[in-house]
Amino acid sequence: MAELPMLRDAAIGINIRSGLIEYVGPDSGIPAKQLSGDPEILDAEGRLVMPGFVDSHTHLVFAGNRADEFYKRASGISYAEIAAQGGGIRKTMESTRSASRQELFELAWQRYLRLLDNGTTCVECKSGYGLSVDSERMAMQVINDLARKAPGVMQRTYMGAHLIPPEYADDRMTYVQQVAAELQHYAEGGLCDFYDIFVDPLAFSQVEAQQIVDRGRELGMKLRLHADEFGDDGTAAWAVANAAVSADHLGGIGPGGISALAASDTVATLLPGTMFFSGHGEYAPARQMIDAGCAVALATDLNPGSSLMYSLPLVMTLAVLEMKMTAAECLNAVTINAAHALGLAASLGSIEIGKRADIIILDCGSPDELAYQVGTNLVSDVICGGEVIKRHGVMFI
Amino acid sequence: MAELPMLRDAAIGINIRSGLIEYVGPDSGIPAKQLSGDPEILDAEGRLVMPGFVDSHTHLVFAGNRADEFYKRASGISYAEIAAQGGGIRKTMESTRSASRQELFELAWQRYLRLLDNGTTCVECKSGYGLSVDSERMAMQVINDLARKAPGVMQRTYMGAHLIPPEYADDRMTYVQQVAAELQHYAEGGLCDFYDIFVDPLAFSQVEAQQIVDRGRELGMKLRLHADEFGDDGTAAWAVANAAVSADHLGGIGPGGISALAASDTVATLLPGTMFFSGHGEYAPARQMIDAGCAVALATDLNPGSSLMYSLPLVMTLAVLEMKMTAAECLNAVTINAAHALGLAASLGSIEIGKRADIIILDCGSPDELAYQVGTNLVSDVICGGEVIKRHGVMFI
Repeated sequence: MAELPMLRDAAIGINIRSGLIEYVGPDSGIPAKQLSGDPEILDAEGRLVMPGFVDSHTHLVFAGNRADEFYKRASGISYAEIAAQGGGIRKTMESTRSASRQELFELAWQRYLRLLDNGTTCVECKSGYGLSVDSERMAMQVINDLARKAPGVMQRTYMGAHLIPPEYADDRMTYVQQVAAELQHYAEGGLCDFYDIFVDPLAFSQVEAQQIVDRGRELGMKLRLHADEFGDDGTAAWAVANAAVSADHLGGIGPGGISALAASDTVATLLPGTMFFSGHGEYAPARQMIDAGCAVALATDLNPGSSLMYSLPLVMTLAVLEMKMTAAECLNAVTINAAHALGLAASLGSIEIGKRADIIILDCGSPDELAYQVGTNLVSDVICGGEVIKRHGVMFI
Repeated sequence: MAELPMLRDAAIGINIRSGLIEYVGPDSGIPAKQLSGDPEILDAEGRLVMPGFVDSHTHLVFAGNRADEFYKRASGISYAEIAAQGGGIRKTMESTRSASRQELFELAWQRYLRLLDNGTTCVECKSGYGLSVDSERMAMQVINDLARKAPGVMQRTYMGAHLIPPEYADDRMTYVQQVAAELQHYAEGGLCDFYDIFVDPLAFSQVEAQQIVDRGRELGMKLRLHADEFGDDGTAAWAVANAAVSADHLGGIGPGGISALAASDTVATLLPGTMFFSGHGEYAPARQMIDAGCAVALATDLNPGSSLMYSLPLVMTLAVLEMKMTAAECLNAVTINAAHALGLAASLGSIEIGKRADIIILDCGSPDELAYQVGTNLVSDVICGGEVIKRHGVMFI
């Protein structure tokens, strides 16, 4: 993660038909083939060119807003009190359940455009605010609609196991069995790329999650997890034991979890925006994790309750200030490592021949400026799969 | 500060020739006179319309960057060590001194455009990285050039008393006398609106500052101050005693300073971005200050060393999360109170008949969303003195 290969006076050749990168190297060395047939030239004018950002953890599909809770929390009202007043995930569940598929799509699409505007060309997107069979199926339809329309890559995650809905508060196992049973619908329909479970004393126990994971394994589905968010529940190690592609949050991870992740292919996805926004829990021990050899990714956790944030550079700022990560580590964490966290590192997350031409140009000269220019959208140009989506600050979508 | 007057289904009438507001009221009540002569109609489409942001504390004119220090500080290297390695204000002084007037202008103009893009229509702008007679005069020329070209209002502050430059480390009083003597140049030339002094153990003592202030008073100049940033030096009360228009930073303010400010017309300008960015010092006790009756403004402190930040909504987020301010307080603090901090509240900072038409339109429905949508530029439209500078997300300047 400390390495950040850079070229100067370089050029990138893109095959517009395939949307893939065909050349990366010195400006002077572009093969003649690349220049044949009246190629379109896009001059970066000395600015920084880098792979598009990969946001590997978002809850993009929801209705309503929870600004009220943001101010209540700041004024000292606890999450438990807010939940008792009808707030929390349950409030978003209610507004999401009562929205139409078209409304949910429009809201999520506007959010997606904001992500693109901020240079994010690959997004993971979870359901999990429906929390009934029908409402989750509709959310996943919306995610599939988004994935079809999006110029960037979208990874679709079924997260019926976000919370036990109030209807099942006294009959938790029935809901767990329902989620496990629903996996077949998504697997057979090819409707999701991953499933996710919030393993936490407030959500699902490991015993409950195991029922869902066992069914997922039978169906050959790929797992990601919300793990050890507020304390060391041993879920990071459990994620490794269950071959999760990514274990996310990890604010409470302990030495055992760090060792298990470091020895595994499971990526540690850290979400410092959530801590900053919600003030609940601890920042993950990123330095210890990186020094131990964990593969660390950073993501926004975009959601209405604990992190309404679109900008991965702002997440990088928090990673530097609050988790002592370096500029190179941050940049790898929001590109190639985030691609690994989605199992997509072979096809995106870096500027390499044969990968998707997901490329951004920034109004700065050095990657050091991304976290340093706090809260500033430096992304002037966005190219998704060879298609120009934003140019000189203006969106074309 | 708790009051935030709002109208729904409202209209604003602007006289394009004068750039002033001529009507504010119900959409249905626009006077016929306003609608005569083929008026241009700008439909806000149900979105939030508010006064442009006023950033009452920036160090916009500088060359070079200090991203290296941002990462060094995060990795645990102290400010003193960084300064000993040639960093800190002195590093920016060196790059600013070696830049041409045209280079300084171009750099500052690009930063100004970014402020406009973020909805800031009135900016205070300090010199203070030249720290020699000639270099300060050039910085103030650049600020005057900016003020002439800017579509928004710019307030010009001479801050020769930012730091004792290294040449005078052993002869401080000579530099103090030089700054005091220079005031006449700026006063007689009408070249600045304010002068500012960094009163701090690291910069100027109250005794040194008093020499400058006494001369400023003779010349009838308006004072603002960097006060009590890292500890209770009694400078807030001293600012009041010297009729400063604004006392800024105040992270270390004590009960005496709070009482003095509360009983005065001096505005307390808080800069939480600086604390967030630099990790040095304490957040100002905004709650105690507001509850005591201080007039509180919020500003970015935009500068390369301790707060490279353009967005007042992001400063509002920090004010909510770290200083427990409410949405209404934050909004007043970046509009009408910031206008008071510049002595301009009679002519801007709110949407009222007779004031400048400095107006922004935001992609949200409620002022609560500004701090809540963290690090997101929601400003879609910017009008400066009746002139449309940004429309539907596209800048025209």
